[in-house]
Amino acid sequence: MRYLVTGGAGFIGGAIAKRLLEDGNEVYIIDNFKTGYKFNIPKKAIFIEGDFSKNSTIEKLNGVEFDTIFHIGGQSSGEISFEEPEYDLNTNTLSTLKLLQYAQKTDCKKFIYASTMSVYGEEKSKEQFSEDDKTNPKSFYAVGKLASEKYLDIFSKEYGIDYTALRYFNVYGVGQNLENLKQGMVSIYLKQFFDKSFKEIEVKGSLERFRDLIYIDDIVDITIEASKDSNFKNQILNIGTGKKTTVKDILKLIKTQSKIDKKIVVTNGTKGDQFGIYANNSKLKSIYKKELISFEDGLKKMIEWINVKYNS
Amino acid sequence: MRYLVTGGAGFIGGAIAKRLLEDGNEVYIIDNFKTGYKFNIPKKAIFIEGDFSKNSTIEKLNGVEFDTIFHIGGQSSGEISFEEPEYDLNTNTLSTLKLLQYAQKTDCKKFIYASTMSVYGEEKSKEQFSEDDKTNPKSFYAVGKLASEKYLDIFSKEYGIDYTALRYFNVYGVGQNLENLKQGMVSIYLKQFFDKSFKEIEVKGSLERFRDLIYIDDIVDITIEASKDSNFKNQILNIGTGKKTTVKDILKLIKTQSKIDKKIVVTNGTKGDQFGIYANNSKLKSIYKKELISFEDGLKKMIEWINVKYNS
Repeated sequence: MRYLVTGGAGFIGGAIAKRLLEDGNEVYIIDNFKTGYKFNIPKKAIFIEGDFSKNSTIEKLNGVEFDTIFHIGGQSSGEISFEEPEYDLNTNTLSTLKLLQYAQKTDCKKFIYASTMSVYGEEKSKEQFSEDDKTNPKSFYAVGKLASEKYLDIFSKEYGIDYTALRYFNVYGVGQNLENLKQGMVSIYLKQFFDKSFKEIEVKGSLERFRDLIYIDDIVDITIEASKDSNFKNQILNIGTGKKTTVKDILKLIKTQSKIDKKIVVTNGTKGDQFGIYANNSKLKSIYKKELISFEDGLKKMIEWINVKYNS
Repeated sequence: MRYLVTGGAGFIGGAIAKRLLEDGNEVYIIDNFKTGYKFNIPKKAIFIEGDFSKNSTIEKLNGVEFDTIFHIGGQSSGEISFEEPEYDLNTNTLSTLKLLQYAQKTDCKKFIYASTMSVYGEEKSKEQFSEDDKTNPKSFYAVGKLASEKYLDIFSKEYGIDYTALRYFNVYGVGQNLENLKQGMVSIYLKQFFDKSFKEIEVKGSLERFRDLIYIDDIVDITIEASKDSNFKNQILNIGTGKKTTVKDILKLIKTQSKIDKKIVVTNGTKGDQFGIYANNSKLKSIYKKELISFEDGLKKMIEWINVKYNS
């Protein structure tokens, strides 16, 4: 099979591309290196450098036909979307439109989209969200992702392109960018624990905040499964574990597993940061039967990886 | 006061600009004549020709400070948005972002936005919608308008720009473009009744379809009121009469009032056409106390205007 993976130089896109190649497929990648890195791109992939919201980049695909388009790339931080909202609209919404039009033109009938739990926003006294709940996006990022989901629905109904919109919750794991201190709670704390230049751990906001942490291997597996299993067809799905893990829990487990002890300093929260939401994932569980990796196990893998990284 | 009205060469924007000028204000207009006409632009307005989703157009405003920005312009047909979805995203969403950024930069604290009932889409066995109902946009047009509403909410919360998003239902009245046979049920039928080159009236779809018809003078009045009355502040409002008028009713009343009798031919419906929805307008009525113009009275005004038009 032949696949396109956008954002293949990023943490998630790179991991998906890698798995698809291991399974013997042909994989095209588009990335503009705005947040991605060359080392994430698997060697066997056919790489096109460029911004996938621009015609000039799409044209480089030269009409190649794909069995599935995995649109994974895009600016992925609510916080950062406030700095460049226009870029956010282009990279997260216009890009989806252009890739759907490309799919339509080249007769590609399947489109898998990396959406986000951020579309739910946050409501007082509501922590768990299911796909039927009202959306309430609070950042440019979330608005753009939600608009993309609606585009998928239109292209499915009007032009017969099947889609799956995966509302990823908090993804972590081996391969995550430890240098980005603005995104990824687990990687941010791990960096501060393991990097000796940090004398203490800064927690921006309450220790009671929580996340629904899902391991990268599960994300890869579910995302690829979505392109194969017809139960995923034309669905919007929460991709989370359905479990709350508080900041306090994360720090405690890192401390135990890493055997590193540093002082925790709690400072002010960052703009637009969510206190916490977690997934009602019963829709996912009804069609995806494998057990999801626990945070204990996922963190263990990540710490082993970091130990090798820091000791090599 | 100094105001900016986008789409001031269009039916609604032009009428708003005219009223603001009559009330002694200074009015700037931006329009690209994609669907607007020079004759709609009031003579006393300061006119800037261009696409308001482009920096080059916004720059022509030269940092002028406005008391309120009325963002009325944009592609306004669900059906047509399928032909040029990218233009639709730019003109209806990117434009809102750029104008909000301009407001932020120039310290404009009020933004009135022409949204649409199309954001509700259509659901089986549900005809009346209130602002708290789920949105379900079925066209690129509706997706873009909805994303704009979310941008307004973000700019209000993050940067203190007050907004009102007016979800216009079906606007009709004196000044409407009778030559556009793709948009405006009342004007489409009137054209066919009054233009002698039409031997019969073609109705595309069921006679039982219905609309919530609101007269242009009410739209102008409510839209300007929204910029003055603090009850409208940071609100999304249905702007409709709360009354259903079927296609059959419209045709019957035109026939009675115009004393023209032509054969009615029912043909297939157009893609994406709504069967009908109407407004729950209790939120509007709780803050706007004037009586709305009935369809009988509105149609009478329109027919008088057409009679003058066709006999001069």
